[in-house]
Amino acid sequence: MINKVFSAKQLDDKDPLRHVVSQFALPPDTIYLDGNSLGPLPKAAEERARDVVTNQWGKDLIKSWNCHDWIRLPQKVGDKIGALIGAEAGQVVSCDSISINLFKVLSAALNMQPDKKVIATTRDNFPTDIYMVQGLLTLLGDDYSIRYIDEGDIEGQLSDDIAVLMLTQVNFRSGFKLNMETITRQAQKLGILTLWDLAHSAGAFPVELDKCNVDFAVGCTYKYLNGGPGAPAFVYVAQRHQQQYRQPLSGWMGHQSPFAFTPDYEADDSVSQNLCGTPGILSMSVLDAALSVFDDISLKAIDEKSKKLQAFFAAEGKRAGLCDYMDIVSPPIENRGSQVALSHPEAYAICQAWIAKGVIADFRAPNILRIGFAPLYLSFEDIEVAVSKLADIMQKKTYEKAEFQRKQHVT
Amino acid sequence: MINKVFSAKQLDDKDPLRHVVSQFALPPDTIYLDGNSLGPLPKAAEERARDVVTNQWGKDLIKSWNCHDWIRLPQKVGDKIGALIGAEAGQVVSCDSISINLFKVLSAALNMQPDKKVIATTRDNFPTDIYMVQGLLTLLGDDYSIRYIDEGDIEGQLSDDIAVLMLTQVNFRSGFKLNMETITRQAQKLGILTLWDLAHSAGAFPVELDKCNVDFAVGCTYKYLNGGPGAPAFVYVAQRHQQQYRQPLSGWMGHQSPFAFTPDYEADDSVSQNLCGTPGILSMSVLDAALSVFDDISLKAIDEKSKKLQAFFAAEGKRAGLCDYMDIVSPPIENRGSQVALSHPEAYAICQAWIAKGVIADFRAPNILRIGFAPLYLSFEDIEVAVSKLADIMQKKTYEKAEFQRKQHVT
Repeated sequence: MINKVFSAKQLDDKDPLRHVVSQFALPPDTIYLDGNSLGPLPKAAEERARDVVTNQWGKDLIKSWNCHDWIRLPQKVGDKIGALIGAEAGQVVSCDSISINLFKVLSAALNMQPDKKVIATTRDNFPTDIYMVQGLLTLLGDDYSIRYIDEGDIEGQLSDDIAVLMLTQVNFRSGFKLNMETITRQAQKLGILTLWDLAHSAGAFPVELDKCNVDFAVGCTYKYLNGGPGAPAFVYVAQRHQQQYRQPLSGWMGHQSPFAFTPDYEADDSVSQNLCGTPGILSMSVLDAALSVFDDISLKAIDEKSKKLQAFFAAEGKRAGLCDYMDIVSPPIENRGSQVALSHPEAYAICQAWIAKGVIADFRAPNILRIGFAPLYLSFEDIEVAVSKLADIMQKKTYEKAEFQRKQHVT
Repeated sequence: MINKVFSAKQLDDKDPLRHVVSQFALPPDTIYLDGNSLGPLPKAAEERARDVVTNQWGKDLIKSWNCHDWIRLPQKVGDKIGALIGAEAGQVVSCDSISINLFKVLSAALNMQPDKKVIATTRDNFPTDIYMVQGLLTLLGDDYSIRYIDEGDIEGQLSDDIAVLMLTQVNFRSGFKLNMETITRQAQKLGILTLWDLAHSAGAFPVELDKCNVDFAVGCTYKYLNGGPGAPAFVYVAQRHQQQYRQPLSGWMGHQSPFAFTPDYEADDSVSQNLCGTPGILSMSVLDAALSVFDDISLKAIDEKSKKLQAFFAAEGKRAGLCDYMDIVSPPIENRGSQVALSHPEAYAICQAWIAKGVIADFRAPNILRIGFAPLYLSFEDIEVAVSKLADIMQKKTYEKAEFQRKQHVT
């Protein structure tokens, strides 16, 4: 038995973010370790949902496009997200899904690299990222190809025939976190454009897109940004590329003057060109309000608390003997995002047994129990209780007794 | 002065749809003639918005993908829409925007026509439809082209080198309604695939996709289907094409087994292949509930009332002398959708003056006052009052006195 250096209570008492939890509508008797999949409901988002439906849509109807400035919401929300990922205003817009935004950026980036025909990415990237490249290649023909590189040594595998390097900063399964700054620098030395997927980064720790001189980025808002299930995604186009940037999903909202109804498409020379169809106002309004949770909080403070929560989880797990049952398959804390992956052949059943005890984490095939640490609403006591329940499940092997139906879950 | 045959009250009394208005949360003292742009709020949608946010997201969190069957919502909503546009189950799915769905279908249709390189459409199609073709062509290269045909004689301009004929059934400006059945038949005789945009059709009158043997269709849900601002769109792929259909926005939700996380994309052989990223659950849930308004109502009854409302509007307008001031630029009632367009050089100012008197219609550049007739919540008395207010504005020329700032409006 390892003694505790600090108790959960002591750690909670000195946690500068301990009051933030009051901004969330969390269910009772639940410890939520799945905010890296779907963030919980911020109270401000709940209130805004009511307002945008009942008052804006219900009472002001079509006039709301002007009187509630719905028409500028994608840019407004984009700039709010930009502030959380190190992007000056005018470089981020909220729209569509990560998948669709990847298609836009990949097309535009290839267009900027007429002499290069290779998109490089990691084999262990999130499936939809790879699938979108494969879909784009069916349109572009055999001159173009995808090249898989190993995430363990990306810089060593770069070469100057690569047009675009598409990477997800944090591996969705293991939590392995890539060094955005050094990889971007090395890529750009070879004339490669960089496209970063921030699905597991935005809202979890400081991201410095401008400082790292990143070319393009995309991300979702329903994980650490708590925007709601299937909330609109975002796209970042560095200011220096906006004049040249041309993406092919050229819907009317990306036109430089959407309401002029000109016969031919004239692309807007800004990040707004990524808008395509009419924006989803209800969900984007909810996202807008959800982002207000971050108003007075630094990503640095969030990152610091995340590391403490993870260290506490590791210490508690060790103390409870979890290492006898499960392996940690995540890299060390300094090389990972705000999540930990444990492996066990019965990870699915264990995850279900843990959920039955009020601790929600998630399962990733084939054998991963994935645990997300969202510092805005998790306490050290939550971690203590969660570990204790997991240890109990493992010691008593209760997961073997239950029958769990295998169903689908969404990351 | 022309005498009334029936008074508004008499017509309202015998209107079989007169009770449906109680299902909507309409603001007081407003006559809403803009449901062809943004349908008003159904009470069921308001209630569902609360439930999906507060209970499903708020309390059940990530578990809702299963326990509230979020994962099947796009198909469930798709089938509900299908029932309103003459499509048997399994052929419609709800996702993304019209613009993005056009891109998917156009790509897939061209892929099915390897020997043809022409997309035909009308010059007066809604701009985003044309823009999306132009965007796709930038990816496909110079072999492919767009050909503009006149909406007045489509069948006479078809030729067998056309791969896809993309038409919007109802002209967004004039309301001119194309004959889906005869045009589709003539196109198919020439080996042309048909793609119909139902933006101003779905929910407005009976559409018979299966009966007309249509190949593909897309549509939005925020107009006559009352799904909310920027609500998810839909796409129809006829059953006979689904096996062969391959669209390039190949995100994980269109994979035949999204959660298997296979290394390479394997397209689902159903209309669900059109799903790309994670669906927007909040807005799609609201749409799902909004569609319940149609549960016990036939499109035939809606169409009949629309024609009566339009005839009453014409008669009242004539009686009030509106013809002295404005021209009707819509085709006769049997050749148009559920809207009427009036032209006047000061249409914008007139529209604003009408809005100031509580009657909301919309303006379409350069000189169109566009009036939508949505029979679910409009009464004949509404029309009577609206015409009387418009006549007053025209007679007193009050629109000249007001200062109206030109702003953007969304169709």
